[in-house]
Amino acid sequence: MPHHPTIAPAACALRPSVFASLASQLRTLERPPIPLHLGDAYRAPPEAARLERAAARLPANGYAYANPVGLEPLRDAVAARCAEDGLPGLTRDHVHVNVGATGAIQTALATWLQPGDEVLVCAPFWPLVKGMVLALGAVPVEVPFYARLRRGETVAAVLAPHVTPRTVALYVTSPNNPCGTVLTADQMQDLADFAIARSLWVVADEAYHHYVWSPHQHQFLAALPGMATRTATVFTASKSYALAGVRIGFLCGDPAWLDAARRVATHTVYNVPLVCQLSALGAIETGAPWIAETRALYEQARDLVVQRLDAPFDLPMGGAYVFADLGADLGDKPMLEFLSDLLRDGVSLSPGDAFGRDFRTWVRICYTSAPLADLATGINRLNGALERLRRSATATLGRPRTGTNG
Amino acid sequence: MPHHPTIAPAACALRPSVFASLASQLRTLERPPIPLHLGDAYRAPPEAARLERAAARLPANGYAYANPVGLEPLRDAVAARCAEDGLPGLTRDHVHVNVGATGAIQTALATWLQPGDEVLVCAPFWPLVKGMVLALGAVPVEVPFYARLRRGETVAAVLAPHVTPRTVALYVTSPNNPCGTVLTADQMQDLADFAIARSLWVVADEAYHHYVWSPHQHQFLAALPGMATRTATVFTASKSYALAGVRIGFLCGDPAWLDAARRVATHTVYNVPLVCQLSALGAIETGAPWIAETRALYEQARDLVVQRLDAPFDLPMGGAYVFADLGADLGDKPMLEFLSDLLRDGVSLSPGDAFGRDFRTWVRICYTSAPLADLATGINRLNGALERLRRSATATLGRPRTGTNG
Repeated sequence: MPHHPTIAPAACALRPSVFASLASQLRTLERPPIPLHLGDAYRAPPEAARLERAAARLPANGYAYANPVGLEPLRDAVAARCAEDGLPGLTRDHVHVNVGATGAIQTALATWLQPGDEVLVCAPFWPLVKGMVLALGAVPVEVPFYARLRRGETVAAVLAPHVTPRTVALYVTSPNNPCGTVLTADQMQDLADFAIARSLWVVADEAYHHYVWSPHQHQFLAALPGMATRTATVFTASKSYALAGVRIGFLCGDPAWLDAARRVATHTVYNVPLVCQLSALGAIETGAPWIAETRALYEQARDLVVQRLDAPFDLPMGGAYVFADLGADLGDKPMLEFLSDLLRDGVSLSPGDAFGRDFRTWVRICYTSAPLADLATGINRLNGALERLRRSATATLGRPRTGTNG
Repeated sequence: MPHHPTIAPAACALRPSVFASLASQLRTLERPPIPLHLGDAYRAPPEAARLERAAARLPANGYAYANPVGLEPLRDAVAARCAEDGLPGLTRDHVHVNVGATGAIQTALATWLQPGDEVLVCAPFWPLVKGMVLALGAVPVEVPFYARLRRGETVAAVLAPHVTPRTVALYVTSPNNPCGTVLTADQMQDLADFAIARSLWVVADEAYHHYVWSPHQHQFLAALPGMATRTATVFTASKSYALAGVRIGFLCGDPAWLDAARRVATHTVYNVPLVCQLSALGAIETGAPWIAETRALYEQARDLVVQRLDAPFDLPMGGAYVFADLGADLGDKPMLEFLSDLLRDGVSLSPGDAFGRDFRTWVRICYTSAPLADLATGINRLNGALERLRRSATATLGRPRTGTNG
C-alpha cells in the first residue's frame, strides 16, 4: 500500500506501446511512411458496416445507455456465423460484445486471474496480452511455442516444463499474430488434452480465423470435446471486417463463467456504443462476399512479401503478418536504430521484442495495412536497407551473409 | 490459485447490476414503464453531436485504429471547456478520453490500487464504484457522508475514523448521485486538506458538474491548492450532453500518473471509437446553449418532484436524482416487492441498497429520464402506491404514518 504519489506496482509494470519509442520520430516526418507496423487494413469495410448507415439506423433511444452485454440481434448473428465457421452450439447467452478483442481478452483474464497466478503465454504473442496479465498482478510465462511446433515438437513437450501449481490459464492464438502459424486440428486437440489434464482456462485468440491461407484450415479450440466450458473464444470485427476503429470484439464462452465476465465488463466500460454494434451487425449480416474478396487480396499480399522479402521467416499460414529475423544482417546495430533509419526511408515496422523476449532481432511486417503496390515498395525499401547492412558488414569485416528463408 | 471452473474471488464479489433483479419482470410488461430507474436523459443531444454528422466527418482512415489516448482536438476542447467551467491549467496532456465515466474511474483505480488497499467511498455512492474496487481485490470502505455533512458535521470528523494504514484513496462525487448533494467550496477545501494530510489519491466524480441548481455552485476539487497532482477529475459527455450511449468520458489529471493510466487503458480497451469522439467534440464545441436550456428544464423537473413527492428526502442541489426514504411507509414489505408492484403500476425506480448498505429502504428517482408530463405521472403513481401502503397499515395495525419531507 504505497501512498500517493506512488502508483500500483502492477500498473508500473506496463510498457509503453510497441511503437511508442518511434512515434515521436514518426510525427516529425514530412511524408507518412508506408505503414506496415500496425495491424490495420487498407481495405474499406463492407458497405453495410458504414457508420453513416449505422447512425441512420439508431432507434429513438439510440443515445441512451444500451444493454451492457450487447445488442441481442448482434449476439444472435455472431452465434449463427460461428456455427457456419466451425464453432457450433453458441446462443446469444454465450456471446458478450466487448471493446474489440482487447476488451474481450482483458475481461476474460480479469474474471479468472488473481494476483500471483501464472499464465502460459504461447510466444511469439500479441503484445498487449503480456501487459494485461501484469496489470492484474499475475505472471505471464512466455513459452517459445510456434517455432517448436513447426519443428515437430508436441504441445505437451513444449508446455509441460512451464507448468507450476500456480498455472491457471493459457493464452494461444491461431492464426498467430505475429508469426502466421495456424495450428493443425491435431495440435489443437493436443492443446485441448493438455488444458483439460492441467485444469486450465484458455484464451483462444482467434481474431484472424477468417484469414487462413490454402491449404491450411482453422480449427476452433472451443469446438473440441471438453473445451466449451473452459475456453474464452475471442474474435473481432476489427480483423474480420476491417473495423478496428469501431472497437467491436466478441467474447464467447460458457454462461457458467461468462455471466461473471459480463459483470466484470459492466464494471469496466458499462456498454459498448450502439452505433458501433450496428456497424458490426451490418458487417456480419452481409459480409461473407466481402471476406472472400478480402481473403484473396490478403493472400496475394502474403505471397508478395514471401516472394520478395530477403530475410529469414516462417511461411505465414494465415493472419496478417510476416515475422522475420533480421539478426544475421543487423550484427551489432540496435534494432531501434535500424527501424529509425527505415522510417527515414519511408517504411514503418514493429520491433520483435514486443512479441516476446526471444525476438529482439525480429520485425513484424503487416501485409494488410497498405495496398499491394505500396507493400511492394515497402518490402523493396526494407530489402535495400538490409542490403546496405550486408555491404557495410562485408566492407568492414569481410563477413558473409548467413540465414535462409523458412 | 483456484483452477477452472472456479473464477477469481474478486470477480465473484461483483453483484448483478442495480436493476437486474427486476429486469426479467420488466421484459414481461406489455407497456414499458415510465423509466425513472436509470440515469438517462429524455432530451435529444445537441445537433452537432449527432452520430450521422460525426460519421460524415470521419477522415479517410476513420475505420482504422485511433490514438489510444484520445483525439487531440477533443482533448484540447475538454481542457479549454474546463478552464471556462472552473478548472484551469489543463492541457491535452492532462486529458485521457475513455469509455464513459465508467472507464475513466476504473482506469484511475486500476492505476493506483493494489489488492488489499482500502478506498473510502463516500456514501451514498454511484453503484458501480464499489464493484470496481472489489474487482481490483481492494476494499471499499463505505462512509456515511453526505447526510452527515448536511447536518453540519465536518469532513474530517466524518472520514477520519475510517482511515487505516491501508487507506490509499477516496471516492467522492459532487453533485452527488444519488442524493443530489453539492459540496460547498468550504467542504471541498476540507476534503482537500484531509486528502493531503493523509496522502490520499482522490477520484472526484464530477459527472454532473454542469447541472447544479441555484443558488449552489460547483467547486472542482482539483482546482484547490495541492490537489492537481492527486486528483482524478472525471466527467462525461453522457451526463453533460445526454450522450450516455456514445460512451465518451474524460479522465483528467497530472501527467505524472496519467501517463501510467493511459497505459492501463490501452491494455483494457485500446482506443475509444473515433466516431464517438467526434460526436463528443461536436457537443463540446457547440453545446453551451444546449446545456443552459437543458439545465433550466432539469431544474423544473427537480422542482416538480420536490413539490409532489410524498416521502422524505434531502433537497437535491444538483445532479439528476431525488433519493427518498420509503422506510416509514414500507414497514415489513420488502423493497423489491414494492418496486415490483410499482413496475406493474408503470413506474421503474432504483432500489437504494445499490447506493450503500445503509439505504435499504430508499429509492432513487431519476428526474431527467422522462419528459415532465411523464415524470409527473410517475410521481403520482409512486405517491398512490405509498398511500395504499399507509391505508393498509392503518387498516390492519392502526399504525400512524411517520416521517417528514426533508
